[in-house]
Amino acid sequence: MPKVTGFRTVDVRFPTSRGLDGSDAMNKEPDYSAALLILETDDPTLEGHGFVFTCGRGNDLQCDMIEQLAPYAVGRDVADLATSMGEFARSLVRDSQIRWLGPEKGVTQMAAGAVVNAAWDLVTKHAKKPLWKFLSDLTPEQIVELVDFRYITDALTPAEALEILRKTEPQRAANEAKLRAEGLPAYTTTPGWLGYTDEKMVRLAKEAVAAGYTLIKLKCGGSLEDDKRRLRLAREAVGPDIRIAIDANQVWDVNQAIEWIKGIGDVNLYWVEEPTNPDDVLGHAAIAKAIAPVRVATGEHGMNRILFKQMLQAKSFSFMQIDATRVAGVNENIANILMAAKFGVPVCPHAGGVGLCELVQHLAMFDSVAVTGHHAGRVVEFVDHLHEHFVVPTNIQNARYMPPVEPGAGGEMYAQSIADFTFPHGKEWASA
Amino acid sequence: MPKVTGFRTVDVRFPTSRGLDGSDAMNKEPDYSAALLILETDDPTLEGHGFVFTCGRGNDLQCDMIEQLAPYAVGRDVADLATSMGEFARSLVRDSQIRWLGPEKGVTQMAAGAVVNAAWDLVTKHAKKPLWKFLSDLTPEQIVELVDFRYITDALTPAEALEILRKTEPQRAANEAKLRAEGLPAYTTTPGWLGYTDEKMVRLAKEAVAAGYTLIKLKCGGSLEDDKRRLRLAREAVGPDIRIAIDANQVWDVNQAIEWIKGIGDVNLYWVEEPTNPDDVLGHAAIAKAIAPVRVATGEHGMNRILFKQMLQAKSFSFMQIDATRVAGVNENIANILMAAKFGVPVCPHAGGVGLCELVQHLAMFDSVAVTGHHAGRVVEFVDHLHEHFVVPTNIQNARYMPPVEPGAGGEMYAQSIADFTFPHGKEWASA
Repeated sequence: MPKVTGFRTVDVRFPTSRGLDGSDAMNKEPDYSAALLILETDDPTLEGHGFVFTCGRGNDLQCDMIEQLAPYAVGRDVADLATSMGEFARSLVRDSQIRWLGPEKGVTQMAAGAVVNAAWDLVTKHAKKPLWKFLSDLTPEQIVELVDFRYITDALTPAEALEILRKTEPQRAANEAKLRAEGLPAYTTTPGWLGYTDEKMVRLAKEAVAAGYTLIKLKCGGSLEDDKRRLRLAREAVGPDIRIAIDANQVWDVNQAIEWIKGIGDVNLYWVEEPTNPDDVLGHAAIAKAIAPVRVATGEHGMNRILFKQMLQAKSFSFMQIDATRVAGVNENIANILMAAKFGVPVCPHAGGVGLCELVQHLAMFDSVAVTGHHAGRVVEFVDHLHEHFVVPTNIQNARYMPPVEPGAGGEMYAQSIADFTFPHGKEWASA
Repeated sequence: MPKVTGFRTVDVRFPTSRGLDGSDAMNKEPDYSAALLILETDDPTLEGHGFVFTCGRGNDLQCDMIEQLAPYAVGRDVADLATSMGEFARSLVRDSQIRWLGPEKGVTQMAAGAVVNAAWDLVTKHAKKPLWKFLSDLTPEQIVELVDFRYITDALTPAEALEILRKTEPQRAANEAKLRAEGLPAYTTTPGWLGYTDEKMVRLAKEAVAAGYTLIKLKCGGSLEDDKRRLRLAREAVGPDIRIAIDANQVWDVNQAIEWIKGIGDVNLYWVEEPTNPDDVLGHAAIAKAIAPVRVATGEHGMNRILFKQMLQAKSFSFMQIDATRVAGVNENIANILMAAKFGVPVCPHAGGVGLCELVQHLAMFDSVAVTGHHAGRVVEFVDHLHEHFVVPTNIQNARYMPPVEPGAGGEMYAQSIADFTFPHGKEWASA
């Protein structure tokens, strides 16, 4: 039986700021980066890969924090981990000294997520299943055991979670067949980066529609006049039937958000994403109420299940945008997905960056097979960047995420990519 | 004119876990620690000291994050900093790459706080005033300029903040005279650590009353029977007129908190502190409503002004417990104090740990002179630990904090203490 014998972290950064890919009103020049953790075993063919996505500076620090939590995995038997991932994940957020540095937020929470996700990569590779399939084959009781219910029982009890899962259980086989045949609908942010010219945005929007996308997203919040012009051009380019969402990346205060969104006028917006600070449960709720029927989406910076719980309780959003590496990994996102199911809110994962599509698709697919089934409102973000570095890249067909069949949780990059983009001595940085 | 020429950080840890001082239901064996930043200038007699308080593990990481933000101070003229601390503090939370690791929470936010507080130490030493006095001598306009209003204008606008400050301005001289004569009321947590025996708790509670304290606080949340017994013993020991507060340190879920607090019965509790997760605005509001007239206090883990804003909006607490090193330093706490003033909630700072009393007293004193004046509900936590390591230790007389007269922000430790407790090679650790 393989056992975790050690680990290494790598500071991997892609120099995306050179091309303004990924530019938005808040993140002006991100270098898409991964604070990468590789769990090693005594089987040289078996490693577990997990990472935290960051925007560049501080990625080294994120690696260092992962190194403080990764020792919790060392010495564990992979088969034992496979049946105790709930307890394992909970142990990572309950180190009573490190907890002070959060608790359960920011650098420490994301570090816990990298360790949890790397462990899931190990467990699912060992089981020879992709993560979405592994999770979807667990019993309702086993799934509930994965969740840390601490601080969320006022919104979701273990018994309620069980009930949700049991209700869907008879449909799992049909849901899985449908997933394998049709995949899950994707939407694309590729046309909409703030640093792009109008011409490039229009060209990419038309290409997106030609590729089958029915929802595109534009960054906004630089200036109201720019937003109005870009939205008008985008609407002309894609026609009336394509859904258009906008993403403000947290640039507005609450009242400013309401005024700005109303000022844009009626362009049939599908959602407004991150209109204000991600911690502002009440602010999002006020915005959602004021701008209805335009809806609010948020969550990529949602720090933990306690925030998501409140956003559901307060009706802060109509779409829950979980992120694969912002919270404490797969387990905390299962809590988020189950809470969303109880409150009837579709989970529409955030992706993009580097590797976020590869990771988060598993969670959306698990949701579609074993939790809510094929929810009509679900759509998963897709950005066509940096997939070539992944051993199991996303497989988009007709603007839909097709389920990976290869074992693992999706976070493994090619060794050559890791080497070339290691900061600051990999060849892509040394030569810059 | 002195200029910031460089900086150093030191990982300072005190082995408090050996004696179970500081033990509570969540923090079972903290080693009170400081991730210390020293800003150096070209004047060898002038250094700025700031730190983040932590519980041990991860303190090295906190130092590393401080090192990523401290360069923002290097090259700045101290006299220039003195008139631009608002802009300086805002620059630390707007590094668009590092922001991703928060935003404005956890390790990155606390690191910004250490840099801000060290800069204030420099500025106030150069001005030869204690921080509380320096702040209290600023004009309302200058104070407002210190605040980052981003994300809080729906609760407090700059104009409203000015109005609050202008209203108190005519009383400042009288408030200051009163502060210098009488100090500010302290309360003590010294008797109540969870690791203490009943006998030790009772003895320390009696000593606290003999020393003049009129409010003591006991840790709770281990078991309901223990809490009932300890509270009964404490009440017997101190008599009916002394206020007793309890502190659960986040151990309960929302409904559990309500049941537990009601289960304690009528022992005339002054407040219940941290009944649940610090991020839970709505949870605290539900608890506050259910346990009234017992009141809720929280805030020592409040990550930023956006959380405090919501807790005020939702009536989550009756006492706002700011902490000197949890948020982005003096400036963000001025925002918190001004919001509390607008909402009529007393600021009762959290302290203890190492150096938190030395730092936070300045903020309470500024509040008492220039913001709310001598608010009847204000009380400042005092724990009698580790003060001997500080160049300007707290001066408690008759259970009151007397205002420091020495220049600075309060964060300077003796060089010998720093050397002895540097982890892991200082002599106190090397010999363990």
